[in-house]
Amino acid sequence: MPAPHDAGAPGGASGRGGAPAASTDPGTEFAETFAVVDPGAPALSVGELSTQRGDGIFESIGVVDGHAQEVEAHLERLAHSAQLCDLPAPNLAQWREAVAAAASQCPAGECVIKLILSRGIEHGPTPTAWVTATEAADFTRARAGIRVVTLDRGFDSGAPARAPWLLLGAKTLSYAVNMAAIREAHRRGADDAIFLSSDGVVLEGPTSSVIVRRGDRFTTPAPGAGILHGTTQLSVFAHLEHLGFETAYETIPATALATADAAWLVSSVRLAAPILSIDGHPLAVDAAFSAALNEYLLSPRD
Amino acid sequence: MPAPHDAGAPGGASGRGGAPAASTDPGTEFAETFAVVDPGAPALSVGELSTQRGDGIFESIGVVDGHAQEVEAHLERLAHSAQLCDLPAPNLAQWREAVAAAASQCPAGECVIKLILSRGIEHGPTPTAWVTATEAADFTRARAGIRVVTLDRGFDSGAPARAPWLLLGAKTLSYAVNMAAIREAHRRGADDAIFLSSDGVVLEGPTSSVIVRRGDRFTTPAPGAGILHGTTQLSVFAHLEHLGFETAYETIPATALATADAAWLVSSVRLAAPILSIDGHPLAVDAAFSAALNEYLLSPRD
Repeated sequence: MPAPHDAGAPGGASGRGGAPAASTDPGTEFAETFAVVDPGAPALSVGELSTQRGDGIFESIGVVDGHAQEVEAHLERLAHSAQLCDLPAPNLAQWREAVAAAASQCPAGECVIKLILSRGIEHGPTPTAWVTATEAADFTRARAGIRVVTLDRGFDSGAPARAPWLLLGAKTLSYAVNMAAIREAHRRGADDAIFLSSDGVVLEGPTSSVIVRRGDRFTTPAPGAGILHGTTQLSVFAHLEHLGFETAYETIPATALATADAAWLVSSVRLAAPILSIDGHPLAVDAAFSAALNEYLLSPRD
Repeated sequence: MPAPHDAGAPGGASGRGGAPAASTDPGTEFAETFAVVDPGAPALSVGELSTQRGDGIFESIGVVDGHAQEVEAHLERLAHSAQLCDLPAPNLAQWREAVAAAASQCPAGECVIKLILSRGIEHGPTPTAWVTATEAADFTRARAGIRVVTLDRGFDSGAPARAPWLLLGAKTLSYAVNMAAIREAHRRGADDAIFLSSDGVVLEGPTSSVIVRRGDRFTTPAPGAGILHGTTQLSVFAHLEHLGFETAYETIPATALATADAAWLVSSVRLAAPILSIDGHPLAVDAAFSAALNEYLLSPRD
């Protein structure tokens, strides 16, 4: 990915979970609930559990021309992740305010706002929370098509239900495996990956949801099967239903991918990336349909 | 765990992986290779991939009366983790120097030195590396005995070999599941957990290795089976062999735990914790034997 530039102050805004830090800049509109920090300057101590153990949760929100997309859906998922990880319920009003502050500083075009809720300093009293805003990378090429490989996620499709401590439905900061899967995809000459359960069921991409088309029917794996419920997938399904298409959550066997009429990886910032090939097997791409999907995803959504 | 106190400056010493930062304190002995930072002060930027994605690796080294234990074994494992995670090979001479600097500031008694190698700032040129030293918690009670529950780790015993992108032999910063497993153990009224593969094979504790005794024979799961090779387990085995006991790496079925003559969770800082019960089933504890084991582990080892 090209290096995004910083979107300018406040690129970072941080506060303590339920007990907001006093602002370092009492002149800002949001002075009551959080401090604005220089995103390039040191802001976190080495005692942070986010950095010591990936112990926390996050969300990435797309911003288009200053409008933060689907903020409520992301906040709902943040609250759900917090519950799965035994973190205190996020102060949603405070998060909303921090997202608005970050979005108001985003330049025209596409940006990404990241929400991070860490368990805090080791043995400390409260979680640590912060928001960052950066210009998004240029995803023009990915929105035209990506090559994908399937990778075993290691667990069978029964694991999420029987072992909730695996946190499989939570968007935690422990993303080392997700990043390793993308590196493995690159090693295999592909752009991205689709995780499969060890018993051959389609799960999700390392940072995206999978949508499969067969005729006028679009399916995606059911949330609860060890995957995140994608906010962009939700938005795409609502749009497709509005257009008169059928949508469904269902178990998708890995063997069904090669015979799909089309498939996409969808996510909040890269948006809809049509799949050109899966494990080297080519898939049809309807360029106009994907372009229209991305046009919708780039329009203001709430 | 009781809150450890900071071991005093330099509690944190940080430098860039292969290209050490210039020291901020040219008066220290280690001025050439890294900077000494206040562990309570902000030191890391919000762009750190360790904090955004748990993307990095670590080691925890026990320190007894200023002596850092088994430094070379920990550095070897750090280098192994780096390789598995496609991180640059650690500059071991620099790490050795940072560990020595941290150890020299540790008060008498037990401390822990943490080595963290992060992939660095997002889109940045180099990894970020730092070392922290803190007083260890008081593990007297755990060294007398712990109650343990078994928890499904989700993957079968074939997963580590067929899916290296799961990073199962690397000590990554993505420890959210390990922490969740310990919380689940507490919920079940236990002190700690033993992970089992989904096909019922003993793996490891969330932050420790498992050693099982049957007569005069001590066994532990083979490294490579999706577990870390424990530095303390290695040290214990060398000690037991010196005492004339038999040791072996082998597949341990979960069903063998309840019929063991004794079992321990061993780790670098808590050392040998004899298991009082597994899933509520009591296990014999030879208090004198465990005490002698911990006496050995507290003696200077290299």
